[in-house]
Amino acid sequence: MGRAKRMERVVALTKILVDHPQHLFSFSYFCKKFEVAKSTLSEDVLAVKTGLELFGLGKVETISGAAGGVRFIPGRRVEDDNKFLQELAVKLASPDRILAGGMLYVTDILCEPQTVVRLGEVFLNRLKHLAPDYVMTVETRGISLAFLVARAFNIPLVMARHDNYITEGPTVNINYVSGSRKNIRTMALPKRVLQPGSKVLIVDDVMKAGGTARGMVELAGEVGATVVGKAFLIETATPENKLIDDYTAFFRLYDVDEEARKVTIEPILG
Amino acid sequence: MGRAKRMERVVALTKILVDHPQHLFSFSYFCKKFEVAKSTLSEDVLAVKTGLELFGLGKVETISGAAGGVRFIPGRRVEDDNKFLQELAVKLASPDRILAGGMLYVTDILCEPQTVVRLGEVFLNRLKHLAPDYVMTVETRGISLAFLVARAFNIPLVMARHDNYITEGPTVNINYVSGSRKNIRTMALPKRVLQPGSKVLIVDDVMKAGGTARGMVELAGEVGATVVGKAFLIETATPENKLIDDYTAFFRLYDVDEEARKVTIEPILG
Repeated sequence: MGRAKRMERVVALTKILVDHPQHLFSFSYFCKKFEVAKSTLSEDVLAVKTGLELFGLGKVETISGAAGGVRFIPGRRVEDDNKFLQELAVKLASPDRILAGGMLYVTDILCEPQTVVRLGEVFLNRLKHLAPDYVMTVETRGISLAFLVARAFNIPLVMARHDNYITEGPTVNINYVSGSRKNIRTMALPKRVLQPGSKVLIVDDVMKAGGTARGMVELAGEVGATVVGKAFLIETATPENKLIDDYTAFFRLYDVDEEARKVTIEPILG
Repeated sequence: MGRAKRMERVVALTKILVDHPQHLFSFSYFCKKFEVAKSTLSEDVLAVKTGLELFGLGKVETISGAAGGVRFIPGRRVEDDNKFLQELAVKLASPDRILAGGMLYVTDILCEPQTVVRLGEVFLNRLKHLAPDYVMTVETRGISLAFLVARAFNIPLVMARHDNYITEGPTVNINYVSGSRKNIRTMALPKRVLQPGSKVLIVDDVMKAGGTARGMVELAGEVGATVVGKAFLIETATPENKLIDDYTAFFRLYDVDEEARKVTIEPILG
């Protein structure tokens, strides 16, 4: 391949950087890939940085020195995130989401790639100061969301299960009381997935009383990890007293009125 | 904001297109966003297309006419996909993945965002001719993979569960025989998630005898959908006779020898 033109290199550089959020690429990696000198690469990197920041599409960081390089940090403007959450609140409040027993159907939203990719960025934007090493969730419905949050942070996901599986190897198990349903459940985490001392961000789709989240905190503690944050897409307004504190939620669900066919849900803006 | 320079627009255009694989953006959307005439935008689009294709990072399609626009189609060169699969095979063959009972530990790989994003592209590259409307999987371990395949196709994920959940609304249920364990299990799919007549691509992480996959085919049929493809990250070499046919796998697992601490697994190259 002949040497590429500047515009072509900048397009490729943009694609590779945004595809690997948080990943630190060495300058020499790109110098070799594009067959250019470091001074030329620096200009290309600056072009990507300027273009992304001008349109509020994320940041590009360069780190100098031998261990340095360049990386892409996802994140839109706070006002763009807020607008997205407001639009999603309208969608969540649709009466056809009301299920028997006053439950709200949200699985479809958690299965839409575009929406969940965007949610991953919103979670990152609000929680990046926590600098977690892992995202942790429990099966099943929150997995897609937790995984895309992990993608935005570029850290692995750790999944707790409700049973032991032979395919997971040795596990640590706890029993916990599901806060809303008041029944006792088991939660298991493969022993090998978390390093002692690692920092964990708990992510789940819906938090009611917080029993499941408290179970995850306990499970992380059992393997010597530290929970640095707990984040939920939706928290319910009742019960008012939660079993956990210091958490972040992006929507508060006040009421699902089956009779009046009305959902009351508000975004929690940044 | 003043009008952006060409390089800045091209960077932003690249980011927006690659963030929304398969999504058809109208030309007027970008003309408005960048405050440029259609002729200028066409030149910008051509620059993105040339840059991405030169480095084998995907394609940009333009569709003319009133319903037309521009979209990004992920997909690397076949030789890049093969190289990725070969490298992953080495990782999968690591002896520390051997679990009691001759099982292979793969959950960590399914929880690494970078790897799974790349796998989503590899699945798309090999299966795009199927043009599915939905990706379908069954809980739990394959969800992250199935969701990133859905992201590459830009179509929703549909999740079957092993139980009925009040949060899913009315479900269609089937009983099936797990091919390898020979026990009878239940699989449930929310009635509302699949439209009759829609085309479904089944995705799962490991396929042994194919009993679970056959259950998913049956479940899709129950709601009037058509299975257009079945794709698995890993198939086991035994049993040789599978309960399904016409499937795609990306690795074949021949043997996990606990005694000799040796894993024999081969990538199935494109």
